[in-house]
Amino acid sequence: MDESVCYSPIGTIHSPFESPEDVPKSADSTVDATGTVEVDEDYAEGLEHIDGFSHIVLVTHLHEVDQSTMRCDPPFADISPGIFATRGPRRPNPIGLSIVRLAGRDGATLSVDGLDLVDGTPVLDIKPFAPKAEELADIRGGWIEAATDQEFPPL
Amino acid sequence: MDESVCYSPIGTIHSPFESPEDVPKSADSTVDATGTVEVDEDYAEGLEHIDGFSHIVLVTHLHEVDQSTMRCDPPFADISPGIFATRGPRRPNPIGLSIVRLAGRDGATLSVDGLDLVDGTPVLDIKPFAPKAEELADIRGGWIEAATDQEFPPL
Repeated sequence: MDESVCYSPIGTIHSPFESPEDVPKSADSTVDATGTVEVDEDYAEGLEHIDGFSHIVLVTHLHEVDQSTMRCDPPFADISPGIFATRGPRRPNPIGLSIVRLAGRDGATLSVDGLDLVDGTPVLDIKPFAPKAEELADIRGGWIEAATDQEFPPL
Repeated sequence: MDESVCYSPIGTIHSPFESPEDVPKSADSTVDATGTVEVDEDYAEGLEHIDGFSHIVLVTHLHEVDQSTMRCDPPFADISPGIFATRGPRRPNPIGLSIVRLAGRDGATLSVDGLDLVDGTPVLDIKPFAPKAEELADIRGGWIEAATDQEFPPL
């Protein structure tokens, strides 16, 4: 397999959640934590014109995860799906993807709503949220859909 | 800023695109490349129950990117947005997010449609695609929407 790849964080999350236990398990619509993304001044220029987007994707390093597992045991299902069939945090490479609402920008600091990240989480990348999903047809939600009886799983 | 983080790829992309120039610029619906994700046998168990999902998210290391920029010059716009306001590849941390259709699985090999990645791209993580987007309201597409006159930017 390939050699390891290394990244330098471009910023840090400031959130009311002090530990992973404080974070709601599923990033559903009841999660409404407000916080900030503090981007390093070296990268501030990269934020130009981000203001016009309502939502952004935060690619983060889930730094509090200290072990990985090949299987998950979701509380709402009676199967043990593989980790890559879940959004659980104990992944071989603990990379998080969070879609958050961009509430505002003050220089290199972004105010966001809908955070599901622990305070101090390193940010690796920020992308505008682009709902390509709108164009995808015939989406099936696998074991989550079966376990929750929801057409669109809330993960 | 935080210390660097390092990941070991969990697999590799096999794609008909041999260099970045071969890849269509925008992962729109005209992109229909078929390829495979070859996951390392050590992580094969992590794929259990992924079969039921129609789409998956590939988190990749864009290994062919050899420079980063703070600004982009999209051919279809007359502004130069910051790199974090685009999905362009020349990012400080060249992490790619690709939503692809899962066509099938044979052990640790996933067949996928809609690939926009170069052959040999290292895969860092795989997640089920979960269209939380369906629940998001009032999505604004910033400069892309303004430049393309499309309500849902095709990025």
